[in-house]
Amino acid sequence: MITKPTFLVDEKKCRANIQKIADKAKRNNVEFRAHFKTHQSLAIGRWFKDAGVNKITVSSLDMANYFAPEWNDITVAFPVNFLEIDTINDLASKIQLNVVIVNLEAVDFLIKNLTHSIGFFIKIDVGYKRTGVQPDNFELIDAILAKTIASDKLNFLGFLGHAGHSYKSSSYEEIEATHKESISIILPFKEKYKADYPNLIISVGDTPTCSVVEDFSMVDEIRPGNFVFYDIQQASIGSNTNEEIAIAMACPVVAIHEDKNEMIMHGGGVHFAKDAFVDPILGTIYGRIVKQTTDGWGEIIDGIYVKSLSQEHGIISVSDEIISNYKVGDVLYILPVHSCLTANCFKTYQLTSGEVIERF
Amino acid sequence: MITKPTFLVDEKKCRANIQKIADKAKRNNVEFRAHFKTHQSLAIGRWFKDAGVNKITVSSLDMANYFAPEWNDITVAFPVNFLEIDTINDLASKIQLNVVIVNLEAVDFLIKNLTHSIGFFIKIDVGYKRTGVQPDNFELIDAILAKTIASDKLNFLGFLGHAGHSYKSSSYEEIEATHKESISIILPFKEKYKADYPNLIISVGDTPTCSVVEDFSMVDEIRPGNFVFYDIQQASIGSNTNEEIAIAMACPVVAIHEDKNEMIMHGGGVHFAKDAFVDPILGTIYGRIVKQTTDGWGEIIDGIYVKSLSQEHGIISVSDEIISNYKVGDVLYILPVHSCLTANCFKTYQLTSGEVIERF
Repeated sequence: MITKPTFLVDEKKCRANIQKIADKAKRNNVEFRAHFKTHQSLAIGRWFKDAGVNKITVSSLDMANYFAPEWNDITVAFPVNFLEIDTINDLASKIQLNVVIVNLEAVDFLIKNLTHSIGFFIKIDVGYKRTGVQPDNFELIDAILAKTIASDKLNFLGFLGHAGHSYKSSSYEEIEATHKESISIILPFKEKYKADYPNLIISVGDTPTCSVVEDFSMVDEIRPGNFVFYDIQQASIGSNTNEEIAIAMACPVVAIHEDKNEMIMHGGGVHFAKDAFVDPILGTIYGRIVKQTTDGWGEIIDGIYVKSLSQEHGIISVSDEIISNYKVGDVLYILPVHSCLTANCFKTYQLTSGEVIERF
Repeated sequence: MITKPTFLVDEKKCRANIQKIADKAKRNNVEFRAHFKTHQSLAIGRWFKDAGVNKITVSSLDMANYFAPEWNDITVAFPVNFLEIDTINDLASKIQLNVVIVNLEAVDFLIKNLTHSIGFFIKIDVGYKRTGVQPDNFELIDAILAKTIASDKLNFLGFLGHAGHSYKSSSYEEIEATHKESISIILPFKEKYKADYPNLIISVGDTPTCSVVEDFSMVDEIRPGNFVFYDIQQASIGSNTNEEIAIAMACPVVAIHEDKNEMIMHGGGVHFAKDAFVDPILGTIYGRIVKQTTDGWGEIIDGIYVKSLSQEHGIISVSDEIISNYKVGDVLYILPVHSCLTANCFKTYQLTSGEVIERF
């Protein structure tokens, strides 16, 4: 029985989402190095193993540490924070650890301080404009390679890109255009450097492009993460249907204010995080309420949505027509806006079967 | 040595913030039932004991459970979630537990299911319009009191209000006006009901009003929380000076992009949460960088601020004039926008002395 804010996971939907991308990777003959920053759970990781995944991506060294007992090839897709050299050396003594390099300072520090060998990718800014080496900065790329070519500790693996601007798309056409543009930026690096590094790979792949674009055959590796759960933000840009959203929040109703068409639930910023979504009809929302079924949840209910969040309170807007369907003590099931950050608020998840699983 | 995103606490500033409100409570002869939802730490709770505080407020039953080993009088200032009846009964067997009632459903359920007695407040909506009984709804208040008067399990303690709309103020005058208005709404309840309940109390007090208004002598109890840390949002509305902000984030610089006047730090939405602040000059910001000193931090540095946050990345905007002061591997000290939600992202805090303390 659910008595307080709970993060629910539909295992069947999750496994279907994983299989969908695993199948696409196989059709394209590319490595599916799934990003585990969304679910951050060893238990869910095992569902990926069942789909044939054996290399993963994470977003911090601490997260790599958590997964290292069950995964022996991990890329930390974040500009390497070399202050954590002790963690890097410890991980490198146990697993194949791969880091991301965007500057010479990291190269110099690692060459001097690594006690075990690691792999590295050079991150190219493929248009997201957050971080990475500018694609015309061959001076920096060549300097990184010149410094590392003689190192037995830093092994060059290839070029990595993240088309994070695909998250701001509003149609299939926009996602496809972002995919084509980012691929056209990163692909020439393989041609240019493959004579010296015949095994170098090109690693790309965010959830929107991996979900809707078919052709990834020109690259070697994809790294989507959010797709394992999906959410209403991803649904809004066309990455997934609402039926594919594999997680929901369960939150108790603690007050009903009929005079203002609102209900209060226990479920706030500490449970959902604070990412909002601007719905074309409803305006700014923080989640959609779904129908409960015997084995999980079904479709979105019209006339009710999460209107705002404070630390522990969530305010639900609910129409005159349906407010009488609810009473204090009910538990609402809610699809969150951004599953990565919502999942991150919890120490455990509950499967729709009732089983509780651990996470990082 | 700091190597990754770390939540720093300046104990001296915290203790001064606590003492400031403790002194004001004493001058006004009111109970200082501090809200612990901001720091959520037994260790910091002991600093409140040193200032004479012996009753506290929390925002969830789980949080009450965490504090119960060291605090024997706890109010959960949230419309009671009676689905957690097992936790309520367990706590009620150990400490003086007080809950908040806003409807008859909770009263009926608790009368039927409580195994130990608890106190309760009726929450009045004093103008924030989030939850609470409407101040003209005497029918509901009288019905709650009629049902509970014969109960030996539900003891009426008084009326509770939260002027959360004070957070949206932009001047001392606005905060003072909110204070006066909310007091004028809740105070008549004492007059009306004191004949039947001579010991009933009036409990109010958010951080903005408790920080800047002097006169609370007309009420019985104040419950501010954020003031223990403060933050730049509170500073912007005049609750505190920047020098009183008692916490800072420490985050490593992992990349510098001089071409776009930006740096990347390890420190994102999973460390700061996502509350933004609209600075009149800088626009939307997520934190301000401060100077480091031998024993903590000093004033805000001009020309540099946190521009955006994704899951693990923070983008720092930095001007031409000072970008050359920074290098990859530096650790930035940052005042966050909303200390409550930022603190909630961490499992431990680090004092400026280096000591690490636990939290809920």
